[in-house]
Amino acid sequence: MGYHPLPLTRLIEQFASLPGIGMKTAQRLAFYILTLSDQEAKDFANAVLEAHSTIKHCEICKNFTDTPVCGICSDPARDHSVICVVEDPKDVSAFERTREYKGTYHVLHGLISPMEGIGPDQLYIKELLERIQSGTVKEVIMATNPTVEGEATAMYLSRLLKPLGVKVSRLAFGIPVGSNLEYADEVTLYKALENRSEI
Amino acid sequence: MGYHPLPLTRLIEQFASLPGIGMKTAQRLAFYILTLSDQEAKDFANAVLEAHSTIKHCEICKNFTDTPVCGICSDPARDHSVICVVEDPKDVSAFERTREYKGTYHVLHGLISPMEGIGPDQLYIKELLERIQSGTVKEVIMATNPTVEGEATAMYLSRLLKPLGVKVSRLAFGIPVGSNLEYADEVTLYKALENRSEI
Repeated sequence: MGYHPLPLTRLIEQFASLPGIGMKTAQRLAFYILTLSDQEAKDFANAVLEAHSTIKHCEICKNFTDTPVCGICSDPARDHSVICVVEDPKDVSAFERTREYKGTYHVLHGLISPMEGIGPDQLYIKELLERIQSGTVKEVIMATNPTVEGEATAMYLSRLLKPLGVKVSRLAFGIPVGSNLEYADEVTLYKALENRSEI
Repeated sequence: MGYHPLPLTRLIEQFASLPGIGMKTAQRLAFYILTLSDQEAKDFANAVLEAHSTIKHCEICKNFTDTPVCGICSDPARDHSVICVVEDPKDVSAFERTREYKGTYHVLHGLISPMEGIGPDQLYIKELLERIQSGTVKEVIMATNPTVEGEATAMYLSRLLKPLGVKVSRLAFGIPVGSNLEYADEVTLYKALENRSEI
């Protein structure tokens, strides 16, 4: 990346190590950091350190939290008999943005993927079973992505959970709202047809 | 951006404050920081603080450096009679990557832009004049971008510098190597025609 003094090279490399950040973007971000005031640079570094040291996985749902139990799990207004199982905390944010879901979550922090050597033991699956065995849960919604790994994980979990006498459901597949039939792939279109509802 | 504990929200906001980083990317980067080891998170924060505190503008050319005078200005093998004037340190990197330029640089840290309220006094122009008045400089190459501001700054500087008896040149405009005539804009094509060379 051309000629840079060592501390600048190190900062560029740190930015470039972030996912989706290439060398050119990393250089641009590092140069921007140099234009910050002393206080702004300290605030940035402290935000990294503080988030990293204080954010843990919620004792119950494993979502990110800065308290032992997260705000959703400790909210008596939420429906604790419903658990929405998601791959990672980004998905919780997505559901919360809908402002419609009133149940709780369970964050697996990954999906079963034999290709990447990720088995059920590396995910928070044991902890999900324990929550269901406690007896208050009535329904578990499988909200993993509609990918090979997402489907496989949903299937694996539903086979584990059904014998426990809990209702297991899966997110609906179909045409995205506001999209165009022309651009829908065959599988999505077939699913939309199959799961049609009366109007 | 949905539901996040405060330290995580702060980190996302810090990333989102960087140029070209939107909220979705900021969230992805912040989540990635949380997956780092303690040491990796410390290294990242330290790289920010160390670069910010140690990187200054070179006393001579104003490029980024962690020593009072940068490696290029203090290199006796470089041709100190030629100065290449650029907008910012990214441009120095670009020239250094060619491995062909053996002169020195002068980094303006911006361009004259009445629209943005940036006048000559806010750039390192006085310092460029001082370098030329010292008497060892024979040629100044205007290497600002071929934009309105870049052209205006180059014109402004050349009018300041020519009375000092120094040769002032401008980067050649023309067809980029490896490109296609079809996609060249009219002004570039006209410049390429005008500046044609005998073969």
